Amino acid sequence: MDHNDFMKMALELAARGAGYTSPNPMVGAVLVKNGQVVGRGYHRKLGAAHAEVEAIKDAGTQAKGATLYVTLEPCNHHGRTPPCTEAVIRAGIRKVVMAMQDPNPHVTGGGIERLQAAGIEVVCGPGREQAERLNEAFIKFIRTGRPFVILKAAMTLDGRIATRSGDARWVTGPVSRALVHELRHRVDAIMVGRATVRADDPSLTTRLNEGRGKDPIRVILDSGLNIDPAARVLHLDSKAPTWIACGRQVDQKKVEQLERLGAECLPVKLRDGRIDLEALLEILGRRQVSSLLVEGGATVTGRILAGNMVDKVMFFYAPKILTGDDGVPLSRGRGPDRMADCLKVKNPRVSRVGEDILLEGYL
Amino acid sequence: MDHNDFMKMALELAARGAGYTSPNPMVGAVLVKNGQVVGRGYHRKLGAAHAEVEAIKDAGTQAKGATLYVTLEPCNHHGRTPPCTEAVIRAGIRKVVMAMQDPNPHVTGGGIERLQAAGIEVVCGPGREQAERLNEAFIKFIRTGRPFVILKAAMTLDGRIATRSGDARWVTGPVSRALVHELRHRVDAIMVGRATVRADDPSLTTRLNEGRGKDPIRVILDSGLNIDPAARVLHLDSKAPTWIACGRQVDQKKVEQLERLGAECLPVKLRDGRIDLEALLEILGRRQVSSLLVEGGATVTGRILAGNMVDKVMFFYAPKILTGDDGVPLSRGRGPDRMADCLKVKNPRVSRVGEDILLEGYL
Repeated sequence: MDHNDFMKMALELAARGAGYTSPNPMVGAVLVKNGQVVGRGYHRKLGAAHAEVEAIKDAGTQAKGATLYVTLEPCNHHGRTPPCTEAVIRAGIRKVVMAMQDPNPHVTGGGIERLQAAGIEVVCGPGREQAERLNEAFIKFIRTGRPFVILKAAMTLDGRIATRSGDARWVTGPVSRALVHELRHRVDAIMVGRATVRADDPSLTTRLNEGRGKDPIRVILDSGLNIDPAARVLHLDSKAPTWIACGRQVDQKKVEQLERLGAECLPVKLRDGRIDLEALLEILGRRQVSSLLVEGGATVTGRILAGNMVDKVMFFYAPKILTGDDGVPLSRGRGPDRMADCLKVKNPRVSRVGEDILLEGYL
Repeated sequence: MDHNDFMKMALELAARGAGYTSPNPMVGAVLVKNGQVVGRGYHRKLGAAHAEVEAIKDAGTQAKGATLYVTLEPCNHHGRTPPCTEAVIRAGIRKVVMAMQDPNPHVTGGGIERLQAAGIEVVCGPGREQAERLNEAFIKFIRTGRPFVILKAAMTLDGRIATRSGDARWVTGPVSRALVHELRHRVDAIMVGRATVRADDPSLTTRLNEGRGKDPIRVILDSGLNIDPAARVLHLDSKAPTWIACGRQVDQKKVEQLERLGAECLPVKLRDGRIDLEALLEILGRRQVSSLLVEGGATVTGRILAGNMVDKVMFFYAPKILTGDDGVPLSRGRGPDRMADCLKVKNPRVSRVGEDILLEGYL
C-alpha cells in the first residue's frame, strides 16, 4: 500500500455519498499510521459530519501522529458543521495528503494555510484527476452558481433516438437503462420538454433494485402550461418535487390546477416564445440544484446544445441501425454550414455497457 | 511457443497478402520441427505459389518429419497451381494443424481426407475465429458468388456525414482517414453514387505512405450516365479501372465519351429508375470482385441497407456533435415504424483510431 492506494481508498469512500451530499461535494478520508489504515470516513449526506471528522472518530486514539488522506482540502470555515482543520489539528494528525484544493474561489487554500500554520505537513495532488471527475458537478456549481448539465441520450448507430412514429422502446438494453437510473439517483434534477412528456408519458423517477436511490427533482419545460393533468409525472409517489418551468404570463387556473396536483410552477422569462434556458439554469442554481440531467427530447437537446449549455454528454449507442432519414434525430434545429463548426467533445471515453456502447465526454 | 503461437505466426504471415490474393484467400504457413520454426510462407499474390509450398521450400530438407501450421485447409485440386496436399505428402510432413476447413462447399474436407489417407495426422480448429475473420470476404464470395459488402461511413456523434451545405472535410481525423486508405487497398472494389462524385469529386484511390498499396476498382452508380466528364475519377493515373454502372437504355454517345476517357460502362437493369443493386452485385461477383467497399453517400447507403445487402459496417465516429437536424444523415429513405425493426449489428467491436472511435460489426 502506498500513497496512491490510500488515496484510491479515500476516493472509493467518497463515492459512497453519491446522490446524497449535494450541494456539498463527496469527500472520503483515510487515516494511516505505520502503513496501516486506522480510520475511515466519508461525507454521508448533506448536514452530516465531514469525512475527516468521521475518519478521526473511527480512528479514536490512533489518530494521533497519523497521516490523513482526504479527497478534498479540509474546510477552514464554519458552514453546516465546524471547520475540519480544527478537528485535524486537535486530533494530533502529523501529515495531510489531499487530492485537490477546495474549488470554491473564496476559500481555496485556506485549509492548507491553517494546517501548515499548525505545523502539519501538507501534500496536495495525488489522485487529483479522479477527485476532480468525482466532483465535477460540485466544482462547476461552486464556481458559477449554475448546475453542471449532463446531456444523456440513447441512440441507434445512425443517431436516432426514436422511429418516425416516435417509438423509442427500447433503443438501448437493460444494462444501459439501469445505468441511467443510477445516474438519476446521482443528480439533483432531471429535465425534459413537454413534447417528451406527451410522447412517452415518463415518470422520470429512479428505479434501481431493492428500492435503492433517490428520485431527482423533475423539471418540465412547458412555456404555456399545456401539460396533460393526467400525465404520469403529476401523479407519482415520490419524495422529489416536480417543477414546471413556464412563462410569466400563464393562465392562473392552470397554475392552480397543477399546484393542486402537487407540482410547482416556476415562472421563467421567455425567449422567442420558449423558456429561456439560461435564465432557468440561473434559477435552478439559486435553488441549489448543482447537477441537471437533460433527457431530451430532440428540441430541448437542440436548444441546449446550440446555447452551449451542456457540460458533459453521455451518449448510449445501441448496436443497431434504424436506417432511413425520417427517424427522430438527437437534436432539432439548424446546424452549422461548416464541419469545422461542430461542437468538439473533449476527453471522450468509450466503454461497453451490456450490449451497448457508452460515449462520455465534455463540451 | 505452443500450438497457438505457431498458428498466430501463420495468421500474421497470411495477412501480409492482404489486397493481393483476391479472389484467392490469404493463407499463411509455418513449419515446426522439435519446437523450432524451420520454414515460413504465405500466399503473396494471385497466381503465385501457395503458402504451404512456400514454407516447404523455405524449410528445405528440414520439412521432413515437421508439423505444418496453416491457416486454411490445403487444397486438393488443380487450380492455378498444383494441389498443395501432394506437396505436403511429398515433403514428408508428419502432422498438419489447420485453422479452418476450405469454405468452398465443393471442396471442403477434401484436403483433410487426402492427407489422412497418406497417414498424416490432421488437427483442425486452432485459430479458427481469427482465420475466419481474416478471410471473411473470401468465405462470403466462395459460398455465394457475390462480393462481401463493407459499408464504411465517417460520422459525427449525432450520425451526420456532412453539414447542411454538404461540407464533409473533414469529419474524422488523419488516423481514421489513413485506415480507410488501408481498407481501400485491401478490397477489390469501392462503390459510390453519382451524387457523391458530384458533391465531393473524390479520386477514390488508395493513398498510403511511400506509395504502398493498390487502388481498388472504382464503381460509380450513375443510371443515366450523367457524370461530369471532367470528374476527377475519370482522369486518374491508376492501374485500376473505373466502372460506371448505368441503365441498359443509355445514350450511346455518352457511353462512347466515357469509354474514350478510359472508363467502362456496365449496363445493369434498373429498379424504380435506379440501378438494381442486387443485379449489380451479381455482375461484380461474376467479374471476380470478392469484396466491395461502399463509401456512400446517404442515398446509396440507404438503399443498400434497406436491401439487406451489407455484410459488415465500419463506422468511424469523430468526437464532435454537428447539432441541428439539417445535416446529411448516414442514410436516406423511409425507416421503420418500430424500434424493434432496426437492423441489428452483430459482434460489435469498438476501438480508438487516433482521436476517433471505430465501430465494426456484422449485419
